[in-house]
Amino acid sequence: MPSGVHTLVRRTHEDRVLQLLRQHGGMTRGELAKHIGLSRTTLSEISGNLISRGVVSVTIDDSPRVGRGRPAEILTLDPAAGQYLGVDFSHRRVRVAVMNAAHELIASDVAPYEEPADWGTRVELALGLIERLAEAPELHYEGIQGVAIGFPGPFSPRLPRRRAEPVAEARRVGAELVRTAFERRFGVPVLVDNNTRLAALGEAAWEPSTETEHLLYVRLSAGIGGGLVIGGRLVTGAAGFAGEFGHMSVAGSSVDCRCGKRGCLETIASIDAILRRCTETGAAVTTLAELDAAAAKGDPIVIAALREAGEAVGQVLGSLAVATNPADIVIGGEVAHVSEVVVEQIAATVAYELVPVGGSTPRIRRAVLGDEGGAIGGIIALLRSSPLLAGYATLTADDASAETRLRRSNA
Amino acid sequence: MPSGVHTLVRRTHEDRVLQLLRQHGGMTRGELAKHIGLSRTTLSEISGNLISRGVVSVTIDDSPRVGRGRPAEILTLDPAAGQYLGVDFSHRRVRVAVMNAAHELIASDVAPYEEPADWGTRVELALGLIERLAEAPELHYEGIQGVAIGFPGPFSPRLPRRRAEPVAEARRVGAELVRTAFERRFGVPVLVDNNTRLAALGEAAWEPSTETEHLLYVRLSAGIGGGLVIGGRLVTGAAGFAGEFGHMSVAGSSVDCRCGKRGCLETIASIDAILRRCTETGAAVTTLAELDAAAAKGDPIVIAALREAGEAVGQVLGSLAVATNPADIVIGGEVAHVSEVVVEQIAATVAYELVPVGGSTPRIRRAVLGDEGGAIGGIIALLRSSPLLAGYATLTADDASAETRLRRSNA
Repeated sequence: MPSGVHTLVRRTHEDRVLQLLRQHGGMTRGELAKHIGLSRTTLSEISGNLISRGVVSVTIDDSPRVGRGRPAEILTLDPAAGQYLGVDFSHRRVRVAVMNAAHELIASDVAPYEEPADWGTRVELALGLIERLAEAPELHYEGIQGVAIGFPGPFSPRLPRRRAEPVAEARRVGAELVRTAFERRFGVPVLVDNNTRLAALGEAAWEPSTETEHLLYVRLSAGIGGGLVIGGRLVTGAAGFAGEFGHMSVAGSSVDCRCGKRGCLETIASIDAILRRCTETGAAVTTLAELDAAAAKGDPIVIAALREAGEAVGQVLGSLAVATNPADIVIGGEVAHVSEVVVEQIAATVAYELVPVGGSTPRIRRAVLGDEGGAIGGIIALLRSSPLLAGYATLTADDASAETRLRRSNA
Repeated sequence: MPSGVHTLVRRTHEDRVLQLLRQHGGMTRGELAKHIGLSRTTLSEISGNLISRGVVSVTIDDSPRVGRGRPAEILTLDPAAGQYLGVDFSHRRVRVAVMNAAHELIASDVAPYEEPADWGTRVELALGLIERLAEAPELHYEGIQGVAIGFPGPFSPRLPRRRAEPVAEARRVGAELVRTAFERRFGVPVLVDNNTRLAALGEAAWEPSTETEHLLYVRLSAGIGGGLVIGGRLVTGAAGFAGEFGHMSVAGSSVDCRCGKRGCLETIASIDAILRRCTETGAAVTTLAELDAAAAKGDPIVIAALREAGEAVGQVLGSLAVATNPADIVIGGEVAHVSEVVVEQIAATVAYELVPVGGSTPRIRRAVLGDEGGAIGGIIALLRSSPLLAGYATLTADDASAETRLRRSNA
């Protein structure tokens, strides 16, 4: 059997073992083998591997037994050995999520910043949130195996210092401060990457029904970012800047963007841009809540503004789809959830852009992970990078620098 | 030493061995070790590996020797064991190139079609060209290890039949006809892919001075196509359509494209589009030769048309660079060579599009491979896929289907 197929089969069996242990809480090898329909030998091989990686632990069933020789060994997921922390710092809030090695979300919470918040304050806020979460009985911070940090905006762990301009340098200093704070607090490897790219990885990994080896992800929120998964790998680019979909140019637009050029997607399809467009065209909506309410009523001015935004997003993603031929396109962020019109219009425009490649239109769907996407994607990148679980997840952050740091931290 | 570094060091030593054998025609292990500054043991390990892969062969130096024990073993490149054929069918001509396992271009020739030529005729023309090339003494077709075929236009070996529309189906039938003809003629594995994507791989592999792990390649010719190399791998996309840069939309353009939509890059920056623009604005140029001549004189109308084309290419590649963050952008095709203005304007526009990612502007250069790029890129994909040379080239066509076919053909 080719090794790829062998790995897939083993992975499927592992998943089934983990799923059963989640449902039943603890089982013997014999019970597991019977449930899955495997030989004891194969099951022992799989469980031995899971045990050696610390995903599964063994306890002795010492309940009274009559004439059955040695007591049975019970396998359980080892919650203490395999918990991972994901922390996503966006521009406005910090989100914390904890997952175990079985990809179970154990805890998740969010705290908004009192703006303007410097990185020291943000870290304090995040650590405070983590302390409060610790009250949940299933959480075991002493067993945290790694921390993944998501950062907003263009972020490059690889950018050579000599080429860094002041804003990038400030971002790097902030990232190092956060990394150091979490390394000190937990004494474990800390992985850092752009939070929206991590969310793309989360979306690609989270939907078990789809084979999302080739995926584009865009997040439409206060800002616009995105990520590409190509051939199963998260694209970071030569210097870590990949995924800045918000600053791709849109045909026919000339609005000044905060980035220094004109006509970026963000000037049309961010929350503020949509609100501004609504106001310009006569609909008095000034907040996301008002936008939601007006869209729910079917306010034609608001619907038109949302269609304009969707068309711009569709143009950009459509062009990118002509270039990269994805199987899936995932639309995340608050704007995706204001109205079905947004995703509908994106799908229609993408389909037009893809006329030249005929039969190869990607599936287009809303994100399933919502606000937790960045934190969960970070943990998924971490699970892949962890020496404990190396080879477990099929998707990975293609981020040599982050992996190097992990190794260094482990050394 | 980490295995990646170890591989790189061995590869460097291998390259040096092959380079020396090209320069000197045949050397003993002792001579090679001395030239490279390696121990005899290390050199023997490297040469043993090269010999086992059929790249290098051993002959006995039976010239008269005095009192020196057994005759010396001479290592040479084995031209018969390691020749590879690349055949690039464009819309207008077929190009044939032969390379050996040492990446040496042994022969290359081109034949134009008598239009319109069906696939049977094109194959006959290609095989005729190959027969004529066989007169070169260094060519050994009986030792051909594999054939790479480049096809024009969107081409997908993976597209499921049920989704194929008539044009794609005709293309597939043509591809199968060509594949079968070459399999019959040479009795070896045949790899098929889009010729422009293969040219991207060629450009990424051919320039030893650059670490082209992240590269965008565009070919500006009668049509416009391209390819992406991301993380050292050629991107084929979910269904093999990746790289259709000619059909990405350009801001402000509304010219009808042959693909069925409007405003594609091809309607502005292909040879015909530039000639049309020149004529519209008052310069009577109707052929590529006239365009070349007028540009050489500095005809301001022609220069303006070339700048417009360059700006459109720059917009598209710049947007794509914002999304994928390449280290290098390579501009190929006849248009790139008409005037320096084209690449200059592309570079200026790409730099503007990349304002939001500041310090991460890619190097932009003309293609070095010219018309042979597709054939050479195909051979490089083949070298990577070949069981004989597996692991030799660092770049690969990420094309599971092609590799599967190779394996099947070998079985």
